[in-house]
Amino acid sequence: MRIALDAMGGDHGPAPNVGGARLALAANPDLTVVLVGDQAQIDPLLAADPPPAGRVEVVHAPQTVEMKEKPAEAIRRKPDASVFRCWQLMAAGQVDGLVSAGNTGAVVAGGLKTRKFLKCVHRPGIATVMPTAKGRCVIMDVGANVFPKPRHLLEYGAMGGVFARYMLNIERPTIGLMNVGEEEGKGHELVQKTYDLFRNGPLADRFVGNIEGRDIHRGAVDVVVTDGFTGNVVLKLCEGVFEFVMGMVNQEVIAPLPHDRDAAAQAVRGLIGKYHYSAFGGAPLLGVEGVCVICHGSSKDKAIANALGVAALDVRVKLNEKIVAELEGLPAGEE
Amino acid sequence: MRIALDAMGGDHGPAPNVGGARLALAANPDLTVVLVGDQAQIDPLLAADPPPAGRVEVVHAPQTVEMKEKPAEAIRRKPDASVFRCWQLMAAGQVDGLVSAGNTGAVVAGGLKTRKFLKCVHRPGIATVMPTAKGRCVIMDVGANVFPKPRHLLEYGAMGGVFARYMLNIERPTIGLMNVGEEEGKGHELVQKTYDLFRNGPLADRFVGNIEGRDIHRGAVDVVVTDGFTGNVVLKLCEGVFEFVMGMVNQEVIAPLPHDRDAAAQAVRGLIGKYHYSAFGGAPLLGVEGVCVICHGSSKDKAIANALGVAALDVRVKLNEKIVAELEGLPAGEE
Repeated sequence: MRIALDAMGGDHGPAPNVGGARLALAANPDLTVVLVGDQAQIDPLLAADPPPAGRVEVVHAPQTVEMKEKPAEAIRRKPDASVFRCWQLMAAGQVDGLVSAGNTGAVVAGGLKTRKFLKCVHRPGIATVMPTAKGRCVIMDVGANVFPKPRHLLEYGAMGGVFARYMLNIERPTIGLMNVGEEEGKGHELVQKTYDLFRNGPLADRFVGNIEGRDIHRGAVDVVVTDGFTGNVVLKLCEGVFEFVMGMVNQEVIAPLPHDRDAAAQAVRGLIGKYHYSAFGGAPLLGVEGVCVICHGSSKDKAIANALGVAALDVRVKLNEKIVAELEGLPAGEE
Repeated sequence: MRIALDAMGGDHGPAPNVGGARLALAANPDLTVVLVGDQAQIDPLLAADPPPAGRVEVVHAPQTVEMKEKPAEAIRRKPDASVFRCWQLMAAGQVDGLVSAGNTGAVVAGGLKTRKFLKCVHRPGIATVMPTAKGRCVIMDVGANVFPKPRHLLEYGAMGGVFARYMLNIERPTIGLMNVGEEEGKGHELVQKTYDLFRNGPLADRFVGNIEGRDIHRGAVDVVVTDGFTGNVVLKLCEGVFEFVMGMVNQEVIAPLPHDRDAAAQAVRGLIGKYHYSAFGGAPLLGVEGVCVICHGSSKDKAIANALGVAALDVRVKLNEKIVAELEGLPAGEE
């Protein structure tokens, strides 16, 4: 299979992208990576340590969307930027998927612009995987759709469930709706209407109802459904709290230890590695034709390689076919 | 001063409330606590360890709002519940403030029902204090107003700033707007309009702009402004992530240590104590006449005592006068 990688995406330029591609090729024998970006920067990185013959191609893209650039402006002013070129390749059927650590808004905007959504999908959303006390859960949406309709959230529950089933091997994923309290009737109109759609539809037997912020990491459900505004805050807040708490642990628990300081510090590094965003590697934009995996802007080689691995797995398990089959089971929705 | 304490509030009944009152009396020589609740349950707890003469009063309330009860129903069916009796006492000028660890929705509903908002306040909101890498910050609102107007958020910024100034001793508090990205124009209509109100009003010099989830614990700003839905998720998520990470630290870092296990476990307990919600003790509902401090449902004696201390400090520093003065400086708003 062929996956396009936005070689210019991310805070660190092409180097971690080329490095990540190299790692992913070693881990995925069926993979070909199409590096999309400034050929003058990519070629020397490849020449320094040539990848296996025939498994890397370069597609030149003369422009790059900056991390702080407004997506709507970027799409107008830089139609040939690397990330949009990736989408064009996918729309033309020349790649099966794409991976980008670039400006998330631009990645999503590129996907929305193709207007190639999966059958029955009204709006794509970003799914992300989070560690919990019981394993892992999927949160959707974490930023593609900051002011969704209830119907969108219903579809996110369905798509997140399919993702949990086929990508995380959770047999019968349960679904919870992010809210400010567990009781029915809590929250604003969006979550109240969404609650009713889940409760009175074909996903009712897997819908556990409303969940609260503290339930996510307790592993209360396998799929957390939320609007893209709340989900994005959740995602970044987790990163911040984790960073803050590990800093405190290092300073107040580990540093004063008389004997075991080195062993403890190493264990803390192990913990950070295990629960760091790079360990799962990328958040898929679900609901579009083809496969799109979005990486954290600060991704290094390992995170890029993991994201390529997720994209490859997504293609292998034919996730989109399963999503369409699941969504065909929902009653028709207007928006 | 006199503070009413909802003796029936919280998951553990009257015992931690009476215990908390006792601790607070010792720490605040100017304080009288009015215990409001079922006299038959309160009296034996007081008799077992009598408080200083004349500093505790009991006001009997025949009903209790359960933690899972719908606030609107509770206010209709149980007008004489302990939490509503606290509000009545404050409305009648018989107490200066109230503290409750009961059903948060019912506490807020009781306050909204009095309709006694401070001059210039359109909607009260709940402020909460969060530890950061640089000290502490205030987040407002964390659940009173789940679908606010931009004007409400502007007022939350102003009130949160006054709170940070006089309760946390932060000289010139900075204000940030919770959003999905730092750039102007990010997010949905509510935050876009709110951004403009801050940027083009008298708080502009203290408004740093949009912040993201990860900025909270980095201490990027002193006051985090957000709608009550997002704020409530943030508050409870922090609790969940903290609990999850400390569990992992205990299991994967501390447990395997050959020599320092006990010392490290003790340091972890110290860390938990330092950053636990009970350490600050209660979230004030700002914008109402009088003082209202809401505690976590699982509060024990120490958390109740800290909340009573916060309520007493609020009265002492005349926080409401400062809030009104600050809000009078804002341009008139319609909603």
